[in-house]
Amino acid sequence: MANITKKVSWSSRDDDPAQGEGTPLLNGASGAARYTRQFSGGSIFHIGRLSTVDLEEDITTQEDGVLSWPKEIPHNEKLLSLKYESLDYDNSENQLFLEEERRMSYMGFRCLEINRWVVCGLIGFLTGLIACFIDIVVEKLAGLKYQGIKQSIENFTEAGGLCISLILWAVLNSVFVMVGAVIVAFFEPVAAGSGIPQIKCYLNGVKMPRVVRLKTLVVKVCGVICSVVGGLAVGKEGPMIHSGAVVAAGVSQGRSTSLKRDFKIYEYFRRDTEKRDFVSAGAAAGVSAAFGAPVGGVLFSLEEGASFWNQMLTWRIFFASMMSTFTLNFFLSIYHSKPGDLSNPGLINFGRFESDSVTYNIYEIPIFIIMGALGGVLGALFNVLNYWLSIFRMRYVHRPCLQVMEAMLVAAVTATVSFTMIYFSNDCQPLGEDQSEEYPLQLFCADGEYNSMATTFFNTPERSVRSLFHNPPGSFNPLTLGVFTLTYFFLACWTYGLTVSAGVFIPSLLIGAAWGRLFGILLATITNSGSNWADPGKYALIGAAAQLGGIVRMTLSLTVIMVEATGNVTYGLPIMLVLMTAKIVGDYFVEGLYDIHIKLQSVPFLHWEAPATSHSLTAREVMSSPVTSFNRIEKVGNIVDVLSNTSTNHNGFPVVNEFIDINEPGKICGLILRSQLIVLLKHKVFVERAHSRLHQRKLQLKDFRDAYPRFPPIQSIHVSQDERECMMDLTEFMNPTPYAVPQETSLPRVFKLFRALGLRHLVVVDNENRVVGLVTRKDLARYHLGKHGLEELQLAQM
Amino acid sequence: MANITKKVSWSSRDDDPAQGEGTPLLNGASGAARYTRQFSGGSIFHIGRLSTVDLEEDITTQEDGVLSWPKEIPHNEKLLSLKYESLDYDNSENQLFLEEERRMSYMGFRCLEINRWVVCGLIGFLTGLIACFIDIVVEKLAGLKYQGIKQSIENFTEAGGLCISLILWAVLNSVFVMVGAVIVAFFEPVAAGSGIPQIKCYLNGVKMPRVVRLKTLVVKVCGVICSVVGGLAVGKEGPMIHSGAVVAAGVSQGRSTSLKRDFKIYEYFRRDTEKRDFVSAGAAAGVSAAFGAPVGGVLFSLEEGASFWNQMLTWRIFFASMMSTFTLNFFLSIYHSKPGDLSNPGLINFGRFESDSVTYNIYEIPIFIIMGALGGVLGALFNVLNYWLSIFRMRYVHRPCLQVMEAMLVAAVTATVSFTMIYFSNDCQPLGEDQSEEYPLQLFCADGEYNSMATTFFNTPERSVRSLFHNPPGSFNPLTLGVFTLTYFFLACWTYGLTVSAGVFIPSLLIGAAWGRLFGILLATITNSGSNWADPGKYALIGAAAQLGGIVRMTLSLTVIMVEATGNVTYGLPIMLVLMTAKIVGDYFVEGLYDIHIKLQSVPFLHWEAPATSHSLTAREVMSSPVTSFNRIEKVGNIVDVLSNTSTNHNGFPVVNEFIDINEPGKICGLILRSQLIVLLKHKVFVERAHSRLHQRKLQLKDFRDAYPRFPPIQSIHVSQDERECMMDLTEFMNPTPYAVPQETSLPRVFKLFRALGLRHLVVVDNENRVVGLVTRKDLARYHLGKHGLEELQLAQM
Repeated sequence: MANITKKVSWSSRDDDPAQGEGTPLLNGASGAARYTRQFSGGSIFHIGRLSTVDLEEDITTQEDGVLSWPKEIPHNEKLLSLKYESLDYDNSENQLFLEEERRMSYMGFRCLEINRWVVCGLIGFLTGLIACFIDIVVEKLAGLKYQGIKQSIENFTEAGGLCISLILWAVLNSVFVMVGAVIVAFFEPVAAGSGIPQIKCYLNGVKMPRVVRLKTLVVKVCGVICSVVGGLAVGKEGPMIHSGAVVAAGVSQGRSTSLKRDFKIYEYFRRDTEKRDFVSAGAAAGVSAAFGAPVGGVLFSLEEGASFWNQMLTWRIFFASMMSTFTLNFFLSIYHSKPGDLSNPGLINFGRFESDSVTYNIYEIPIFIIMGALGGVLGALFNVLNYWLSIFRMRYVHRPCLQVMEAMLVAAVTATVSFTMIYFSNDCQPLGEDQSEEYPLQLFCADGEYNSMATTFFNTPERSVRSLFHNPPGSFNPLTLGVFTLTYFFLACWTYGLTVSAGVFIPSLLIGAAWGRLFGILLATITNSGSNWADPGKYALIGAAAQLGGIVRMTLSLTVIMVEATGNVTYGLPIMLVLMTAKIVGDYFVEGLYDIHIKLQSVPFLHWEAPATSHSLTAREVMSSPVTSFNRIEKVGNIVDVLSNTSTNHNGFPVVNEFIDINEPGKICGLILRSQLIVLLKHKVFVERAHSRLHQRKLQLKDFRDAYPRFPPIQSIHVSQDERECMMDLTEFMNPTPYAVPQETSLPRVFKLFRALGLRHLVVVDNENRVVGLVTRKDLARYHLGKHGLEELQLAQM
Repeated sequence: MANITKKVSWSSRDDDPAQGEGTPLLNGASGAARYTRQFSGGSIFHIGRLSTVDLEEDITTQEDGVLSWPKEIPHNEKLLSLKYESLDYDNSENQLFLEEERRMSYMGFRCLEINRWVVCGLIGFLTGLIACFIDIVVEKLAGLKYQGIKQSIENFTEAGGLCISLILWAVLNSVFVMVGAVIVAFFEPVAAGSGIPQIKCYLNGVKMPRVVRLKTLVVKVCGVICSVVGGLAVGKEGPMIHSGAVVAAGVSQGRSTSLKRDFKIYEYFRRDTEKRDFVSAGAAAGVSAAFGAPVGGVLFSLEEGASFWNQMLTWRIFFASMMSTFTLNFFLSIYHSKPGDLSNPGLINFGRFESDSVTYNIYEIPIFIIMGALGGVLGALFNVLNYWLSIFRMRYVHRPCLQVMEAMLVAAVTATVSFTMIYFSNDCQPLGEDQSEEYPLQLFCADGEYNSMATTFFNTPERSVRSLFHNPPGSFNPLTLGVFTLTYFFLACWTYGLTVSAGVFIPSLLIGAAWGRLFGILLATITNSGSNWADPGKYALIGAAAQLGGIVRMTLSLTVIMVEATGNVTYGLPIMLVLMTAKIVGDYFVEGLYDIHIKLQSVPFLHWEAPATSHSLTAREVMSSPVTSFNRIEKVGNIVDVLSNTSTNHNGFPVVNEFIDINEPGKICGLILRSQLIVLLKHKVFVERAHSRLHQRKLQLKDFRDAYPRFPPIQSIHVSQDERECMMDLTEFMNPTPYAVPQETSLPRVFKLFRALGLRHLVVVDNENRVVGLVTRKDLARYHLGKHGLEELQLAQM
């Protein structure tokens, strides 16, 4: 790998002020050419193969494209979309805010703190309830469906005409899936998938449009019920994380914008900083409810979201997690008529691994590591296939009706494949006494036996995982497992990314459990079986971990989730080794599934650290410049003009003393956000002349909070010609102490400051304290380490 | 609680430049008067009742006082010691560093990353080995001791003259403890106690002198063996955390300064940023080895240390934890002649709680919460008693020989009390078949029976905890448990803070397990026993958690540690509830034990957030000013003079353009550290005249790394009169982009920046970018929330 040449030959933006106007480059194609820079010791590589036509099309479809996955994005990962705004984790400490804080007594802060705990408790409670609701409805509906089909199959087995059963099955599935797909595709496309990539982005600080709205929650919950009942190769766990996050965003605001109800509580929490903290708690509560893993939930939130670890926040997140699993457990215990029995802490129940019966030996550890590597390879394969499929979908399956049809097709195919495999399988097992199968299907087996292939298909995936973990050795024959792994692998891969609400956790676990069990059986055969060390259930667990790790590439949180879900600490070490191996091996080939989908959406996602070799870049090169600034007392007309300029669409504006023109920067004295300016304009906070503050309307923090988070667009605010001539005094509303760095600051240093504090705008100043540039999320996110060293993604309005 | 008046009437330092010279106030008594400020709406309260005499005495004893707990500190918590320096978690990105980074290829960074993993693996391995060594030696020695005493008691029971056994016991204990106390008191006082407060401080960013040295490790290991074998009411778990941290600090530097060996590896890691990351890993590995709790270890490190959560770092920490528990387990399995049996993951082994036999019901949760509250109260009592005792010790027991004598006294008393209680106890239990008692003592019991009181005393505390958790109902009678709780409570309280290496985890667990079991027995009696829900073992576990939580006040990490140590996830929820309750109740009375000891040492410890009501303060009031600055090209004589000024003892100096005098600040252009200047002086990096860089010797980063971390004092560097007239060009060595904030920045904002980035110096500038002040750790740590609202601690040189 060649070193980066110290003097990079930039085609400097500053040389070309006409084009460089505005933060990002908007004129796609010419930008692509300009962004072609010389790295890696002279080897020139071109980033982006974007044609102007593509971009123009995108810009025209931009308005509704914001709602969801873009209708069609050019097949290019080397892009960063400009449509995503950032959350502001840094408080705007303007005079209004400071005055409120100073007015507040110590008791006031205590009350706030108690309120935070109450909100977290509520989040946990409601998330638990939702999980409970989903679980019960799915169980009921799936029960009815399987009863019906079983009846039909049993009727037709003797009589012949099993194809009628098949058609019944396929139609039932398709209908359920159709309902699920229709509500997602037509009403709330953002509810598609597991929601984990979206929540990851949200916690990372990207404002994902509509992702935490009530409507999204409703669609998500109904959608996931339909897709699970519809027999798709999906789980209901992933969506719980999204649901928890929506609950959190809703509860913490004390109002519902969708329902137009304001309970006048928790007004203090109406800003990004607080909301994002609660959303972390909600996501954790979701994980906790899904897997019965409260600690795993906390770790998930931290692994995915935390920028600055705060002890009190972590405890609150933990509390929400605990409440959530407890609520779920409590209500499920009542539903199962065993009130007080706390053995169902999550949606998924792996069943308890009793430690004495199945322990592991030190010589098994290399075997586990091999399984981890295998999981990594299979996971990478899964991800690559899914990546190609997603690109295909973006290009050709982007209309809602097509999406619904694809989902129905998958449902029908899933049913057909399952049926065929059950039909041709002759793996008959004696009916055990424990009756772990709820719908044992006799089919062509002798009396007192059941079809083992049917067990894996004819069941919710959760139960199948449990069977694979716990059924005694010999319950499945190797061929069944092999064929099942193969088919389910492709089915799951095809299913992920459909326009339905569904998670990938359970299918991954199921695939892994199947090949893990197969692995265990083969191992026992090879090593001459007699000994009981190669318990197939144990290998199913390890295989499940390996496969899931290979697909999603989480380590710490996933280890804890697996440990909590199996209720057994003994397997902690092997699971951890397996997940680590799977991650290392998988990362060699391709990124994790969620990261792939984030990249496909061109989200400006900030990783944990700046790319290792980016010390050669400084703030001067990274920043956007020149910057549109405002004077402390600014003409209303100017403000309206700048805000209305759709080609720039800036969100933060430095406030300067004596701003003359864009080429002669003033000294920084504050930073004001578009949203704040819009509220000011809406409330006509104008003065007749400069320096007369007499007539300026007094605004409260409340006015800003009421408008949060759906600030009106500038177009909706009418400013008369007379008003345009008025002045606006920004002193009180701007953040007087924005974080600023000198131009010479290296990129890793800028990155660290930006990431650790969760900033949205970072002002770059010269040594006279004059504003020379502004660094935003996109400016940082576009640098990444590619195969040829440091690469730069291209910004595009899409 | 009254609001803070908006306009605080500061007796501003700026009014009084003569006294305000230098960062902190050094003239104790007059400072105390000046720091009396008016808060809380007019009520004046005086902080500090320090007499000048106290302080002068401290200053004279300062030189060796640095080594350990101060010999005598004035009984006043409202002080912040100036003797502690900060770690620099922020890289000094000077030209040398940037050049090195830019030279490094992508593969270079990959190698570094791999090296980090290797180092973490080594840390885990060595920590595990140390744990293994301690465990085996303690077991052997304690076995010999108990055998001998048991023999003696059995001989004398019939013959009379049991007092000879008593004397034997007391003498044996005292001798062991004497050895342990002597090495600690005379060779390395910083090895006293569990080391957890010290590691907490280190991870918080305070440079604790000598805390991570090889000598400390050796003394710690020997000391803990002696004190555990000496029968004190202590555990060997806490010290493992310290040991792990020392191992990490040693291994990661690739050399031992004590042994004067430099392996010329890992030179890149020779700076505070990297070292602190490794020390986090070491502490986690220590927890992991102590409790067999790798996830708990990671959480401990994060709860106590993390400022910015970094995913890769967390995974490395997790890896170190895993390695550590695995190594311990592996070697112990060989030692126990069961190679490959991985059932001893930690020093402590609570035994496995089988979930089916003892589960809990929902109606038990209120009972658990009550136990949690009880634990909180008892913990607070423990802490208050220990606090008084510590103050007494600081005042009167501060000479090493006195300390050794106290330790011996405690050892003898412990033996005597134990003996007396065994003697007067008539709680005879039949010898079980499982032989869980290794040294069953018959004493006056009938044949085939053993003295149950003896079980709890005549054993290492770890085993006693296990007996309390697992012995079948009826193994202990309530009176035994009650008396045992009472005595052990006071013994443990007296023991913590002795000049021996020892932890408080196990004694706390033991006390809690005893009263928890008692609670369970009483509960079973009250509720008419017959049912088996009130299993005393279960209540022992809950009691242990409550008591430990009440004393140390950890929640998340402790929950996970307990879950991992019991190998049972089912109790996660109750343990978490109990720990939460214990913390809330305990915090109502007094802080956690570790925090108390940190406060007693007057360490400038930064909490997670600025005090809630501190928005009224701005950087202007918080900062130290005026600041001693240097010119970019500075006269050597000036530098030597400033560094030699013992009354200021500054560690960081802003570098400015055109610095004229202290009242006319220059524009900031960098920041240079004392340590860097010292290296420059040592290598005589001088130029004859300003602006001639011809003769300046070229320094490498290596020169700085070689001197790290024990930079020589300025006194050891001789600068001739001619050399004093030379100039020094700081441009290359200073950090050209220090973080800076405007004067109007609010304290919470300053605090957040400082804490999130782990800064050591934060420059405060005016709007012309001129240096007006410097914020250091002490400036922030001195504000805290007291009973009367915001209080300010006083700085003192001690």
